Parts: sequence; structure tokens; C-alpha cells
Amino acid sequence: VSPIPSLGPGVEFDRIRAIARALRERAGPLDDDCALLPVGDATLALSTDLSLQGVHFRREWLEPREIGWRVAAAALSDLAAEGASVIGLLAAIGAPADAGEGELTALMEGVGDAVASVGGSVLGGDLSRAPGWTAALTVIGRAERPVRRAGACAGDGIWVTGALGGAGAALAGWLSGEMPSAEARRAFVHPEPRIEAGRWLAAHGARAMLDLSDGLGGDARHLAAASRVGLEIELDRVPVAGAALAAARRRGVAPPQFAAENGEDYELLVALPAEFGDREADRFRRECGVPLTRIGTATAGDGVRFLLAGRSLALAGFDHFR
Amino acid sequence: VSPIPSLGPGVEFDRIRAIARALRERAGPLDDDCALLPVGDATLALSTDLSLQGVHFRREWLEPREIGWRVAAAALSDLAAEGASVIGLLAAIGAPADAGEGELTALMEGVGDAVASVGGSVLGGDLSRAPGWTAALTVIGRAERPVRRAGACAGDGIWVTGALGGAGAALAGWLSGEMPSAEARRAFVHPEPRIEAGRWLAAHGARAMLDLSDGLGGDARHLAAASRVGLEIELDRVPVAGAALAAARRRGVAPPQFAAENGEDYELLVALPAEFGDREADRFRRECGVPLTRIGTATAGDGVRFLLAGRSLALAGFDHFR
Repeated sequence: VSPIPSLGPGVEFDRIRAIARALRERAGPLDDDCALLPVGDATLALSTDLSLQGVHFRREWLEPREIGWRVAAAALSDLAAEGASVIGLLAAIGAPADAGEGELTALMEGVGDAVASVGGSVLGGDLSRAPGWTAALTVIGRAERPVRRAGACAGDGIWVTGALGGAGAALAGWLSGEMPSAEARRAFVHPEPRIEAGRWLAAHGARAMLDLSDGLGGDARHLAAASRVGLEIELDRVPVAGAALAAARRRGVAPPQFAAENGEDYELLVALPAEFGDREADRFRRECGVPLTRIGTATAGDGVRFLLAGRSLALAGFDHFR
Repeated sequence: VSPIPSLGPGVEFDRIRAIARALRERAGPLDDDCALLPVGDATLALSTDLSLQGVHFRREWLEPREIGWRVAAAALSDLAAEGASVIGLLAAIGAPADAGEGELTALMEGVGDAVASVGGSVLGGDLSRAPGWTAALTVIGRAERPVRRAGACAGDGIWVTGALGGAGAALAGWLSGEMPSAEARRAFVHPEPRIEAGRWLAAHGARAMLDLSDGLGGDARHLAAASRVGLEIELDRVPVAGAALAAARRRGVAPPQFAAENGEDYELLVALPAEFGDREADRFRRECGVPLTRIGTATAGDGVRFLLAGRSLALAGFDHFR
């Protein structure tokens, strides 16, 4: 096993590669949505996720209970991407010195709502004073058939759950001083962890999967790198959230490009064998209540080619250290 | 099972009680060093720990690799307090925008050194930009005989590993503008996770145990509250770190009071049956390489009574929200 994680390009991922090189046998693989831990007959999936006021959100945008839901849903999304069910989470929370006890409790109620919505509970935590709201959530689940980022084969269909760009529309609005639409705000504030969808896909042949946190533009490259395949994504097929249409037009960007360049939708990107078709996608929608749309194909080769109206397009993804 | 965790007094613990009351069945017990999770025949122990620059340490005090060791050792200490062995940890790290890649890698090398020193590895993580160095470490271990904070009985001996006050001497030095002695600095910077000691004690009859992070003054109250016993602690018996003697004298405080009022030593406080005596403690020291000292007795009743030269003394413990 190579000690260097197979991740896409970006400063953040260069840093993870540097860490893996330095740690060698003191570290595991570090290139999947979750760490996988065999315990007896079970395989546990674990993932940790850090959200910071001023970096991931601003206090003016979100009420404490909404902060809690959002950070927990974002963390749980990594279990969804592994096809895992949820046991629970641990919450390490830093609260500003001037925050009231009510705000902290409300934030933890949002965390509790999110984890209870997918059958888990708050197992433990840590509290501290902090310069701004700080939430480090560690989720733990059980993966009967873990689906890694590696595993896609040339010829597989590439599919996405739900619609993209809604959370990005809210963020773009706030950052340019507009009030986001209710729909856009809801996409940012209340993402649904796709646990049921992830388990369904794991049980129906998913070969590789990840969740779209940094945006399709960046995250698709991780799936390609981990699976050692190329991806050809037809942006015209990408389902665009209603809220993203107006936001994209206002910025003079094609809506699917806007949807693919903005992250935090926490939908799943999944490689399924070629025989998985529209009939299976209809069944998925009926059973999971979310659409599943084919947006591309895995190919021999490497990297990701994004096509818009038949022409190649260079897409940006989010990078914390860019 | 009462949903209200049995913790000692303090604003931080009032907040945990308020959270538990609000979350009800959405949360587990929340009053032990670790969450305990039965998986097949195994019991896993999990704990999460948040350390922040400017709150838990200042950048001028510590090199990045030292930050990494210290935060990992502090987190691993919760596994020691449960009598667990170490599987590994997940590291959610926030790095300041102006930190070099080398600093982040060095910090993670410190984390890797600490977890490898007790047989575990870095299983996963998350990286983000942050206002200051932020480390949320979640540790996972296996507890064959979990030792909770609850379980001490009236008549049990109360024992402590190692010596106390060294880390506090460094902290008190830095905060008053002095350069701490090399010994004091080492106690703060390089605490040893007492994994082997915790497992030995779990295997030799420990009834209740916790690690001293906030100081004996505060932490002893948690053990008393969880076990529903009183504790009588004879401070004259508390083993005081050499570095703490000078720090206490300079401040006009009795050394055992200084040692008990300062935290972050990450030694273990343990209740053992009355028949556990000096002969067993000698064996512990030979096998684990650390002293074990009897400092008191569990009694019928509640609360903690600290005695210094036969007189009752009110002690302070550290509280993040005081």
C-alpha cells in the first residue's frame, strides 16, 4: 500500500499528502470519506469534520440551532458517502465567552436533531471557550458494504443525488450583500444527510462514492484519482437547484457551471455499473425520495473532463488553503 | 437511567447538564471519560478533546510538534482513564492562514508520535483554515474491563499515579512572565498518556477512575458525584512534582495545594478496594514505571473534603466558563 493518499489536486490535499509522507506507518490510508475499522464481524466507519465561525459560516447567517444541524449533517454526510448506517457522534464544541448558555444548548439541540433524524445519538463531547463558535464533530457508523472512493471502473455511469447549487446560491448571496431566497437559505442551513440514499446505493452495486462538500468541480477529481480512472462529466445533465438558476444568471455564469463550482450541497456522487439505468434510478427515487441523475461516465485514463454544450470547460473547486 | 449526568459543580458542567436535559433520548450518558460502545463481543471507548491556541496554550510556549504531542496525549488520557487500549485517533486540525506547510506537518508528527507511543495510529482527519491553531482529536480504543467514574464504594482507597503540579508550574510561570524550569516545561509539553497504567489498574480491581485534566480540586468531585460517595483527600499525601515545589513557594501556597489546584498533569485518580495496599502499589510501580500513591479514602456521603495538616481546605479547580 502506498503511504501517499490518492486525492485530487489542491493546496489542502498537498498538505494531506505531506502529512501522510511524514507519518508513514503512524497513519492509515487517509484518502477516503471515512476511516474503516474492522471490529469482530462488523466494519465501523469513522469521520471527523471541523466547522468554524468566520471560516465555514458567519454568525449573522445562522441561528445556533441551525449551526448545530448544519455541522452535524455535514459530518454525517461522510457516513452516507461510505454507505454506512449511523451509530452516533461526539461533539467537541468551542463557544465564545459572550455566548449565552441558551445558545450553546440550542446549537446542541440542532446537532441532536440531525443525528436523531438518521437514527443515531450524541455519544459524548467536549466543551471549551473559543474565539468563535467551533464545532468538531466525529461521526461513527457501521458499514455492511463500505463503498470507497476507489472502485469505479471504466464504463461505469457517474450519477448524482438531488440537485446542486442551492447552498452555493445562499453563500454567494450573503457574500455579495444580498438576502438569499428562502429556498437557497434552506439548502445551506438544513442539508439532509443522505444516509438512506447511501445505504440504498451501497446495496445496489455502487462501486465508488463520495459526498459533494467542496463542489463537483473539485470532488469529482478525488473519485477519479482514488479509482485511477478518468471521468467525463456532461454539465448539461447536472440537476441544478431552482435557487441556483437565478444566482447563476445574476453572475453571468451558466447554471450547471455555477452548480458544479459551488460546494456544501452534501449530495452523493456515485459510480454505478453500466447496467444501472433509468429504471433503477426511478426505483431509487421512489424508495429514497430523492432524484438520482446520470451526469457522466468513467473512462480509461485519468483526471476529469467537464463538458458544457459539447465543449471542454475548466472548473474550480473550493480549496481551504488557496 | 437519569438523563442528567452526574458531574461535579462548575459552570462548564452546568452547561453539560443543560445540554443533557434538552437532548433527552437524543444523547447518551455524557458523564464518563469515554463513550462506551458495545460492538459484537468488544466494547469500544471513544472520546473527543478540543485544544485551542489562546485558550489551552499560546504559540510562544510550544513548537508545532510539541502542540501535536500535547493535544494527542491529553485526548489519549481519556482512554487511559477508562482502562482501554488504543486503536487510533482522528485529527481535525485548523491552521492559521499564515502557518507554513512545515508547521502543520510538524504538528501532525507530534500527534503521530504520541499515538504511536501507545500502539495506535492516525486513522483520519480534517484540515481547515482557522483563526488560530485548533485541534480536535477523537480517540478510539478497546476496553476489556471499562472502568467508569462511577463504581467507587465507601472504604475504597483513593490513589493517584505519578506526581502533580508540574504542568501547572510551567503554566503559572509563563502567565507571570517567567521562563519555566526545564522540568516544569516538560511536564506541560510532553505528558505521557498513562495507557499501560490504566490497563494495569483495570486488570487489578480498579473500581472507578478518571484522569486529572482540570486538577485534583475539580476532578475529584466528578468521581465522588458519579460514584455517589464522599471522598476524603489528605493533601499532605499528594505526591508533588519537583517543579511545583518552587512554583508553590514563590506564590506562598502550600505545595500540595498548588499541585491539587492546577490541572493538565493527565495523571490517573483511581479508587481501589481497601485490600489494595503498598505491596500492590510497589508491583504497579515496577511493572508500569510510575509511582502510585494513596491520598485518601471514599466515604459514605457526598462531596470531597480536602485536608491539609488535619484542617479542611476549600480548593479551586479549573473551569472553562468561570
